[in-house]
Amino acid sequence: MNKPGALSAEEAALFTDLYELTMAQSYLHEQMFAPATFSLFVRQSRINRPYLVAAGLEDVLHYLEAFSVSSEAIDYLHSTGIFDSAFLDYLGHLQFTGSVRAIPEGRLYFYEEPILEITAPIIEAQLVETLVINQINLQSVVATKAARCFWSAGDRSVVDFSLRRTHGVDAGMKAARSSYMVGFQSTSNVLAGKTYDIPVTGTMAHSYVTSFESELESFRAFAKSFPETTVLLIDTYDTVTGARKAVVVAHEMESHGNRLLGVRLDSGDLLALSRHVRRILDEARLEYVLILASGGLDEFEVERLVSADAPIDGFGIGTRMGVSGDAPWLDMAYKLVKYGGRPVLKLSTGKISLADEKQVFRLMDSERRLRGDVIGLADDPLPEPEAESLLETFMQEGKLAKRLPSLHEIRERFQQDFSALDDRFKSLKKARKYPVRLSNRLRKLQKALEREAEAAEIG
Amino acid sequence: MNKPGALSAEEAALFTDLYELTMAQSYLHEQMFAPATFSLFVRQSRINRPYLVAAGLEDVLHYLEAFSVSSEAIDYLHSTGIFDSAFLDYLGHLQFTGSVRAIPEGRLYFYEEPILEITAPIIEAQLVETLVINQINLQSVVATKAARCFWSAGDRSVVDFSLRRTHGVDAGMKAARSSYMVGFQSTSNVLAGKTYDIPVTGTMAHSYVTSFESELESFRAFAKSFPETTVLLIDTYDTVTGARKAVVVAHEMESHGNRLLGVRLDSGDLLALSRHVRRILDEARLEYVLILASGGLDEFEVERLVSADAPIDGFGIGTRMGVSGDAPWLDMAYKLVKYGGRPVLKLSTGKISLADEKQVFRLMDSERRLRGDVIGLADDPLPEPEAESLLETFMQEGKLAKRLPSLHEIRERFQQDFSALDDRFKSLKKARKYPVRLSNRLRKLQKALEREAEAAEIG
Repeated sequence: MNKPGALSAEEAALFTDLYELTMAQSYLHEQMFAPATFSLFVRQSRINRPYLVAAGLEDVLHYLEAFSVSSEAIDYLHSTGIFDSAFLDYLGHLQFTGSVRAIPEGRLYFYEEPILEITAPIIEAQLVETLVINQINLQSVVATKAARCFWSAGDRSVVDFSLRRTHGVDAGMKAARSSYMVGFQSTSNVLAGKTYDIPVTGTMAHSYVTSFESELESFRAFAKSFPETTVLLIDTYDTVTGARKAVVVAHEMESHGNRLLGVRLDSGDLLALSRHVRRILDEARLEYVLILASGGLDEFEVERLVSADAPIDGFGIGTRMGVSGDAPWLDMAYKLVKYGGRPVLKLSTGKISLADEKQVFRLMDSERRLRGDVIGLADDPLPEPEAESLLETFMQEGKLAKRLPSLHEIRERFQQDFSALDDRFKSLKKARKYPVRLSNRLRKLQKALEREAEAAEIG
Repeated sequence: MNKPGALSAEEAALFTDLYELTMAQSYLHEQMFAPATFSLFVRQSRINRPYLVAAGLEDVLHYLEAFSVSSEAIDYLHSTGIFDSAFLDYLGHLQFTGSVRAIPEGRLYFYEEPILEITAPIIEAQLVETLVINQINLQSVVATKAARCFWSAGDRSVVDFSLRRTHGVDAGMKAARSSYMVGFQSTSNVLAGKTYDIPVTGTMAHSYVTSFESELESFRAFAKSFPETTVLLIDTYDTVTGARKAVVVAHEMESHGNRLLGVRLDSGDLLALSRHVRRILDEARLEYVLILASGGLDEFEVERLVSADAPIDGFGIGTRMGVSGDAPWLDMAYKLVKYGGRPVLKLSTGKISLADEKQVFRLMDSERRLRGDVIGLADDPLPEPEAESLLETFMQEGKLAKRLPSLHEIRERFQQDFSALDDRFKSLKKARKYPVRLSNRLRKLQKALEREAEAAEIG
């Protein structure tokens, strides 16, 4: 059963750049059926992301497993006049029969490291490029941004409020899943709650307040409807006045044996206002009432508030997390690294790719903290006995090769990896560069191939 | 029939922030069934977008028409323990029965102007908030960014290459639709081509080139497969050397009575390389071979290339357009402006909303060029006899009230509006601010309501 916002198998086959199909037709003309390995990785760039979180693999595996081109899709392709009938006939019978090795979701990875490698007859491996990048890029982008927000909040809770300004349906669903993966406590997205078994939470909107004749009346009505879970939004007219009205309602709730859960600040100077509101609440003996904050938050603003010790118990983080405001994409690429047993690369200015099937080895110190990674060839020996190989085989001959972890398991896996990464690699503005090097065998092969390609192609 | 990546009606009802549902339950408790009007608009901000393009209405109307809460959704809501059975029963019978007035897709609009107003019983109007913002925000963001790219290219063509790094399925589809709406010539997205009847185009990838023993061989093979539409990607090893090989293949194609369509540059200094490659082609009497460019392009880079008169015939614009790299969201909000006949507003710091049902009037000069807009009350008279009212009624009593324009008609509508807007309002970095003012009646009402709310709520 498809997840909401996902493509059916029939649609997925056409969710591709046209050139994947024209190249496929040409491969067929040339009778090129040898196995090809493509490697997915993020190019080093000036984007401020010292670590990356792997996410999106589950979707990619489901799409690959179900890959097929429907007769309706064939009819459309025929109508473009670009394709010949031999190719369309071939396409109509195509399935994905390849293998997938990948870094599991929730694990940390770094620039230039292959997060996923697909080996399949070249037509199959080529045709799935666009969908593979589309799904893993988005989810890595959001999981990574959300991890930064989670980290900046320290021991205070963070909640996903991003749905309304994420980029459409799929992005809204994936923002909830990706942020929960990296430690968010809950989401406001009800459909994501249902689909992914994520806790859902929420407060109230300004429209609720303004629909009543007075703010106080609106607070009372909400408290009556939700005597145990009311969080009052107090900035509709003026935050401080709103806090005083919240006190009135909280005391009324006490007289009925209930407790106001919290208040939410959504505008203005959140540091000064949270202090002022905390004082008002405490003076009214409402120490138990939580203060939540929202409104344009990201990891930088959260860090500022936390390091000033703002009395804020939880942050609702929306748009800037959900679209990864300061870096809405990664320079993620899917490059041919081997064809018919021959390792290959490209030399384009600033975009040289690493040849051949690879593995990523993670080095740990004696306390199992991350020391650095080695990008090696797939058949390299472990660089150290305690090193870990990150890429695991998830698919063979087009079928899932292992049980996929649940989102809750992925969430635990992330916490494990993330807590093993030193804070100096996590700093928001000037993180230390995490050490990643090439294995000797990969470095030698790469040098030789670069020289060879230069001599043969450029001269 | 649902579009690819869209939600089914059953799913759409839960694609919402939880608080819409808790507020709805409280409205029901309070027996609040009066009509409410919500207004969708973009708050003034420092985002560099001097004009905005309306997009996304079609999806919203389809979702509203089909709105219903399935028993499966009710079961999930029940399981959260948040809702009572009276509300869930009410929800199970709910449909959208309201009206929608909106600025048609493809038209220009500006900050603070209502792009859409929904009037419906408050529970209905409240519940659809998240979905309405999600769809219109994304599509406005991308259409606006794409319009800037289209404008910067002048008379050269622009093509959507964004699919792989857009934010998931829905965003990928909408990037193709939104960019075609504002003048892009075609898209690489095959599924969007099929779904929206947009021309699809493409070239070849580096993987194609590296899968062959030599670059020259790969060029020959592609030309053999596509004797009339071949565009060779020439930067896999070295752009200048690649251009020389393209010349060889172009001459071979001529000897078979065919013509090489073009070459594509994808890395390096596009200005210098395009000049060098043009010279190589021209010296080989291949004046007809087009030069296309891609790779990290946006409106700023395109403007730089065009103003330096780079010999580039077309631009493939990808990621930065598809995610609106420099401004991946608009500060779009959906605010209650009237309830039970009473106009309302909020006063939150920096986020004051304009009360009551509104209309946007567009003033034209004698040559039908845009002079400025007036935001007025819905029942304001035209400020000038030649002024145009932008908000049109699209839905009444939950049913479509008019035929929706085709994407091709919307595209023409955009061209009409856009060409009537002076270039000084379109400049990429320092556009003149387009004049937007409030009508006298709206201004007076707003002032009175602000004073009233301050007195009543803040004191």
